[in-house]
Amino acid sequence: MTTGAGAGTHPVHKAMASHTRPGDLPWVPWAAGHFIKLIKLNPVTGQIILFIRSVPGAALQMHFHPGTVVVYTVQGAWTYDEGWVSETGDVVFEVAGSTHSPRMVGKEDTIVFAVIEGALDFVDEKGQTIATENWQTFLQRYHDYCQEKGLVAAEITKF
Amino acid sequence: MTTGAGAGTHPVHKAMASHTRPGDLPWVPWAAGHFIKLIKLNPVTGQIILFIRSVPGAALQMHFHPGTVVVYTVQGAWTYDEGWVSETGDVVFEVAGSTHSPRMVGKEDTIVFAVIEGALDFVDEKGQTIATENWQTFLQRYHDYCQEKGLVAAEITKF
Amino acid sequence: MTTGAGAGTHPVHKAMASHTRPGDLPWVPWAAGHFIKLIKLNPVTGQIILFIRSVPGAALQMHFHPGTVVVYTVQGAWTYDEGWVSETGDVVFEVAGSTHSPRMVGKEDTIVFAVIEGALDFVDEKGQTIATENWQTFLQRYHDYCQEKGLVAAEITKF
Amino acid sequence: MTTGAGAGTHPVHKAMASHTRPGDLPWVPWAAGHFIKLIKLNPVTGQIILFIRSVPGAALQMHFHPGTVVVYTVQGAWTYDEGWVSETGDVVFEVAGSTHSPRMVGKEDTIVFAVIEGALDFVDEKGQTIATENWQTFLQRYHDYCQEKGLVAAEITKF
Repeated sequence: MTTGAGAGTHPVHKAMASHTRPGDLPWVPWAAGHFIKLIKLNPVTGQIILFIRSVPGAALQMHFHPGTVVVYTVQGAWTYDEGWVSETGDVVFEVAGSTHSPRMVGKEDTIVFAVIEGALDFVDEKGQTIATENWQTFLQRYHDYCQEKGLVAAEITKF
Repeated sequence: MTTGAGAGTHPVHKAMASHTRPGDLPWVPWAAGHFIKLIKLNPVTGQIILFIRSVPGAALQMHFHPGTVVVYTVQGAWTYDEGWVSETGDVVFEVAGSTHSPRMVGKEDTIVFAVIEGALDFVDEKGQTIATENWQTFLQRYHDYCQEKGLVAAEITKF
Repeated sequence: MTTGAGAGTHPVHKAMASHTRPGDLPWVPWAAGHFIKLIKLNPVTGQIILFIRSVPGAALQMHFHPGTVVVYTVQGAWTYDEGWVSETGDVVFEVAGSTHSPRMVGKEDTIVFAVIEGALDFVDEKGQTIATENWQTFLQRYHDYCQEKGLVAAEITKF
Repeated sequence: MTTGAGAGTHPVHKAMASHTRPGDLPWVPWAAGHFIKLIKLNPVTGQIILFIRSVPGAALQMHFHPGTVVVYTVQGAWTYDEGWVSETGDVVFEVAGSTHSPRMVGKEDTIVFAVIEGALDFVDEKGQTIATENWQTFLQRYHDYCQEKGLVAAEITKF
């Protein structure tokens, strides 16, 4: 007995795209020399969509990713010292379980657009986690910054 | 200049697990000989978590998956005629882009627990899609069934 | 009895990032007026990372997504006619189950960087799927193009 | 100008399901009172598919998840002390960013089937991470155990 599902009409439950103009959102200070502009945080899956802006010469402490990261370089140049430099227009794909320390090597600010699954764990030289950033800590940073500056926080966890 | 993030305390934005007793949810008729019991539908990512129950000898029309599927066999036995039979306690992992037609080979009803990313497309012999099932069509089936039976639908799209 | 895991040192199984210079990869003709530059295709999960370039005034037939899509506009301007225009630097997030038809509204070519989970289904006015694009069809297009042009295909399915 | 993609035939790049009989794989000791049976580890995305078996009364140290977890209870009973007990056949969905300590409350061993995205971080009372488990550390535990017992490790990272 082989049976098929009934003829399909497409979905009645509405699903709409959402558009964000980054100019409407603030650069929130993160580690010294680095700023984040959060676009979307998914409180179910932990997906983080954001821009990171870093001043020339800045590095970010060694960190570990439990999930994937896709990075598009909007401006500037940076490296993990793994044999390549990511310049404007380049793409870096980071697999789950990778550990690295980005270092800015451009003359202007470096800006990247990134899609991070889950979190990043800052680690010390022994590989011990010293701090974790995820949708919750990023959301807290954003809300704290908005409160401090008298800004109305956008609903970046709504889809 | 290497700079770290401030010392991390863990999240203030609450995140709780949710527990479902399948006995509280109905078996909704699907294709003839098959029933679905929806546990969670994620309207952002399209993830579908459900049980499928199929009567002995039932087959399901050939279908294609755009994303992954993880299947744990709770009861009974089934096959894709790819050289194995999945029996109680076995696990099948289906990669994105796989196409197959499950066929029940046990003497009792077969019940599987599945985590489906995205959708399944029923296809004809030429590989042409004739119907698509995703979070929206499954939700519609569930709501229609609840309305018909006078049941209060559970909030399976909330996390 | 509460028991913890042993003290963790970080991973011994190596996990490295991969860097892609889009200038090294070709623009492969897609629908008329549209070109794709594939960066990574994940044959397990179906994730597609690519650039799409579209000539001024081009539209793409109505399509449905079983999974999420994140779109960063690199150049130009486009719209789904849902009340916004995505210009250079903007981000669009598309939830699973969304259906739409992009239309280019800039004076130059529009280029977007996109992370697509799973597939896109082209649909007719009745919502019936007429063609599906996923990691497999995109890979085929890329390999066919490389063969036609005498190019060596990059290993875009390796991570 | 509206243009469609060419008529779609379905994929030529093969994609097959893989079937695992858990009886063929060992229970690897984990924290005291807990054993893991790994089914699949995805070294790109970090997805972990496994069974966990825990002796009556066992608890697992408080831990945090950067991604989602889906848990199906195969046998026994357990709780996070959040107001419910998960018994045989029940499903628990854990959102990204949740922190909890499972406690076994059945009279027999508890066995769960779980799909974990990314990792779990064991944390102390202050929320500080003391150890992380991900695809790499689980793979190492499996390989170490196979070596110790003279077993041939299955290729659980292949799909």
